[in-house]
Amino acid sequence: MALTYRLATEADLIDIVGLLADDQLGATRERFQLPLPATYMEAFTIIASDQHQELTVVELDGQLVATFQLSFIHYLTYQGGIRAQIEAVRVKSSHRGQGLGTAIFQYAIQRAKDRGAHLLQLTTDKKRPEAKKFYKSLGFVDSHEGMKLHLR
Amino acid sequence: MALTYRLATEADLIDIVGLLADDQLGATRERFQLPLPATYMEAFTIIASDQHQELTVVELDGQLVATFQLSFIHYLTYQGGIRAQIEAVRVKSSHRGQGLGTAIFQYAIQRAKDRGAHLLQLTTDKKRPEAKKFYKSLGFVDSHEGMKLHLR
Repeated sequence: MALTYRLATEADLIDIVGLLADDQLGATRERFQLPLPATYMEAFTIIASDQHQELTVVELDGQLVATFQLSFIHYLTYQGGIRAQIEAVRVKSSHRGQGLGTAIFQYAIQRAKDRGAHLLQLTTDKKRPEAKKFYKSLGFVDSHEGMKLHLR
Repeated sequence: MALTYRLATEADLIDIVGLLADDQLGATRERFQLPLPATYMEAFTIIASDQHQELTVVELDGQLVATFQLSFIHYLTYQGGIRAQIEAVRVKSSHRGQGLGTAIFQYAIQRAKDRGAHLLQLTTDKKRPEAKKFYKSLGFVDSHEGMKLHLR
């Protein structure tokens, strides 16, 4: 598969939000309508101008088929180490089950190494046991609880 | 308790690294020696210059007794929402068991709300069941698995 990876641009925004909304959980959280709610563009501007964020799109034959966001968070812990965190991973529904997820994570792991991170982390909803199995197959260890406090 | 909160300065660095090292897991990860390894100062400089990071110290009677780092991560998900993440929380061993943790988390929750976050999240090691219980008492839900992939 000739997947290509690049940072998202403003021109990708509608496609990306479409991907985010095309998901069981995402459908209840997003507002995918045209014109897009302004909050998406506001968030994009902040993410794109932040050197510690990589909002990435994945293309296959010139078509946008997946997206994810990598964050590189600097801490004092681990002697001033960098943690990479991956979130908002979505593969287009028409392209699932074809190994894109594995390829994308292999890319993300390499990218995290290239940027000097000592760890790549994510949280996955316990309601998705197949996702946890997938992450374990990539070498992730489920050593932690992912605790969430919704503020609204 | 008259706790005061402020952003860490360079002058706090030795005290903070001392707190991070004064911990069962931290003892194996940190290098607390004087002069401090340069990587701590390098990380501090990056964190302090990042408007999305708040490396915070907590003082009691003018003494530094705790530290934590709040990160505000912008995503396109949740209609361009902000997630607050808390990490590297440490209370001085001489001051544990006195309710500082609860007070600090109440502050962090309010701070996350003030900055417009829709969620406050953290991961906690499954080897620390009492920590999970503590977070649950604050309203956190253990809905997710915290998956980690060490890269070194």
